[in-house]
Amino acid sequence: MTALDIARLSTRDSDFTARLDGLLAWEGVSDAEVQHRVETIIAEVRARGDAALVELSNRFDRLSVSGMDELTLTPERLRQAFDGLPEAQREALRLAAERVRVYHERQKPESWQYTEADGSVLGQQVTPLDRAGIYVPGGKAAYPSSVLMNAIPAHVAGVKEIIMVVPTPDGVLNELVLAAAHLAGVDRVFTLGGAQAVAALAYGTETVPRVDKIVGPGNIYVATAKRAVFGQVGIDMIAGPSEILVVSDGGTDPEWLAMDLFSQAEHDEDAQAIFVSWDAEHLDAVAEAMARLLPTLEREAIARQSLAERGALIHCRDEAEAVELINRIAAEHLELSVADPEAWLPRVRHAGAIFMGRHTAEALGDYCAGPNHVLPTSGTARFSSPLGVYDFQKRSSIIHCSEAGASSLGPTASILARGESLTAHARSAEYRIKS
Amino acid sequence: MTALDIARLSTRDSDFTARLDGLLAWEGVSDAEVQHRVETIIAEVRARGDAALVELSNRFDRLSVSGMDELTLTPERLRQAFDGLPEAQREALRLAAERVRVYHERQKPESWQYTEADGSVLGQQVTPLDRAGIYVPGGKAAYPSSVLMNAIPAHVAGVKEIIMVVPTPDGVLNELVLAAAHLAGVDRVFTLGGAQAVAALAYGTETVPRVDKIVGPGNIYVATAKRAVFGQVGIDMIAGPSEILVVSDGGTDPEWLAMDLFSQAEHDEDAQAIFVSWDAEHLDAVAEAMARLLPTLEREAIARQSLAERGALIHCRDEAEAVELINRIAAEHLELSVADPEAWLPRVRHAGAIFMGRHTAEALGDYCAGPNHVLPTSGTARFSSPLGVYDFQKRSSIIHCSEAGASSLGPTASILARGESLTAHARSAEYRIKS
Repeated sequence: MTALDIARLSTRDSDFTARLDGLLAWEGVSDAEVQHRVETIIAEVRARGDAALVELSNRFDRLSVSGMDELTLTPERLRQAFDGLPEAQREALRLAAERVRVYHERQKPESWQYTEADGSVLGQQVTPLDRAGIYVPGGKAAYPSSVLMNAIPAHVAGVKEIIMVVPTPDGVLNELVLAAAHLAGVDRVFTLGGAQAVAALAYGTETVPRVDKIVGPGNIYVATAKRAVFGQVGIDMIAGPSEILVVSDGGTDPEWLAMDLFSQAEHDEDAQAIFVSWDAEHLDAVAEAMARLLPTLEREAIARQSLAERGALIHCRDEAEAVELINRIAAEHLELSVADPEAWLPRVRHAGAIFMGRHTAEALGDYCAGPNHVLPTSGTARFSSPLGVYDFQKRSSIIHCSEAGASSLGPTASILARGESLTAHARSAEYRIKS
Repeated sequence: MTALDIARLSTRDSDFTARLDGLLAWEGVSDAEVQHRVETIIAEVRARGDAALVELSNRFDRLSVSGMDELTLTPERLRQAFDGLPEAQREALRLAAERVRVYHERQKPESWQYTEADGSVLGQQVTPLDRAGIYVPGGKAAYPSSVLMNAIPAHVAGVKEIIMVVPTPDGVLNELVLAAAHLAGVDRVFTLGGAQAVAALAYGTETVPRVDKIVGPGNIYVATAKRAVFGQVGIDMIAGPSEILVVSDGGTDPEWLAMDLFSQAEHDEDAQAIFVSWDAEHLDAVAEAMARLLPTLEREAIARQSLAERGALIHCRDEAEAVELINRIAAEHLELSVADPEAWLPRVRHAGAIFMGRHTAEALGDYCAGPNHVLPTSGTARFSSPLGVYDFQKRSSIIHCSEAGASSLGPTASILARGESLTAHARSAEYRIKS
């Protein structure tokens, strides 16, 4: 058993804030070189469409295709992938998809309106996007669960057409990913990746239809491309590495907690797992369990590096300080492994998802509890939300002034418009004032 | 009377689609030079904080201040501005603010949860941002109504602190803007503008607190800076020029319609006003009214240029084609000047705000109807929404598995996690399966 290499912090330390800030710091910087390459790729796709996609895919994914038909998967191919899965996987996917669907059905915003005394009607009409694009990474980060989590909310929202792109480096397809696409109601799949896939979705080509919003994680080229096309299309958040913050009152089995922390650390070397408790003995017990269990992990090397570089065990004074840390860190995943998590909830201001109580392993939420596993990272839970049905819908304001309503609002609009020197605005309102 | 210079299109023309595409094309491009200057400014503010803000404000706004205290307005100064307004303006502002508040109160999303048969609880907790930053342009585009429209939803959302920045080129303050800030519940005002103001809000300085989201329009430097800090903080959409699409069935007074189109065209030379009807005589009557009224506008030169460069009168075949155009254009403002606008509503898929019937002048919505006037431009209504209370709140998923719930979900999570080779995930779930 190798010793556990992880930062041990105490809120009593004079350098605590600086050390915590250092641990949390993360900027997914794309340097000028990446920016320039991405801009060039986008310009090529806009100028030459399909031809550029074929060339770029051959170059970056080491393929040798000659046309877009070879970069297109049919619905039959997706169904084939689903039918070809072992029964247990097929059923697990189906159950997960169903639970995710049920949860997201509860999340649908509704159109609303109200009528004022003078008969004027005000409200908002909620409508789905026409077309959504889902980026699914290829290679080591190809997760079928992510296909479900991205596509099902779009489907529930009523999006007419869901387009998925997934790169196939060296021509390798992931059958589970295709099976998930089948199950989640994806309409079309193109085996494209990188900035070229983002450009194709944003601007359209002869074969790839332009979408209204692009969601899903990707590498630095994908993230840079999404930032570049933002405005031309909608995008979701630009995701950083995955994180978990586990808070325990000392009453949860240290082995469970160790494995919960590992389930984040095993994602990749940049992932972050932080444990907080005011119980010093419990902290030691968790550290001991981690040291003992770490060598038993298939992905030990990744987890070890992640814990050494970005992990932390934090000893705080009390519950109140733990709550402060929760809101300071604004974690993607927050596990409240405490006796009465309901009592904590009102004090949690910032977190992507809150896993409550000793039995709610974060992994359950990753796959099948129902809520989305696409969550704000790197402290962005301060201002953003889990991916949801609302990301695939938009609202239009409704204003229907009655004759009386327009007449009574007219003078106010006129005064304010003239205060802004916008006199055509004023006159347009004044026409509707009854004399 | 000068002749009216505006594009006349018919959907019957063979080049109609190309001409319409040409008219609608808009890209708020920031070239490499602007990008570089913005990056430099952001880096300076991050490195040197207040000192950089003072220097940059002196340089760009032609000031000669020596410290941040001279770039800070007190709440007393805001109240002074409000108290100093003429009674009619004060009352108009107050009425507008009140109506905007009432409308946005209706828009608040609520936390929700449900309990499953095995006792597991799923839901979402809605919480406000801690701190929001509102960018208000100085100079010719300084609109008090925009202060109301940006700050009131934040206030209704429960944001704890609302920070406003507004540049004061040559030291000029706009009293109406300050009065609106007082009324809308702005907590602190800094007289900062440009990329340096965005950088200060995104990263914080000794004096300016870091915010969680930045909203509000600005010039190309502001837009470029917002794009650059996106991810560090939330941002709203990057706004393009204002637009209106007016659809009339022939029953509305042509002078009213002409003035509605002018109320958009007078904004600036890039603004876009498009009129659609299937009634050829009505189209001519509106064109005639425009030609006649245009010389009577205070902002005639701006409106004339806007109409000549980006305006259009479009003759379509019938209502169905008008609906197609509505959804193709996805306008910021859509005026349905028709007899039965309710009947049209279900067919409108994309629009920022829908002004229904002959009496609902768009100008009423700009100031005091209640709905927000910050709306998606340049076709982005395809995927985005009016600014609203929801922009100042975020959601956290809630997952509270009962012992039985965790046990029954465990096998599914385990199978899917192993399918993704994430075995620590699997084991974390397996610990919670009751033997």
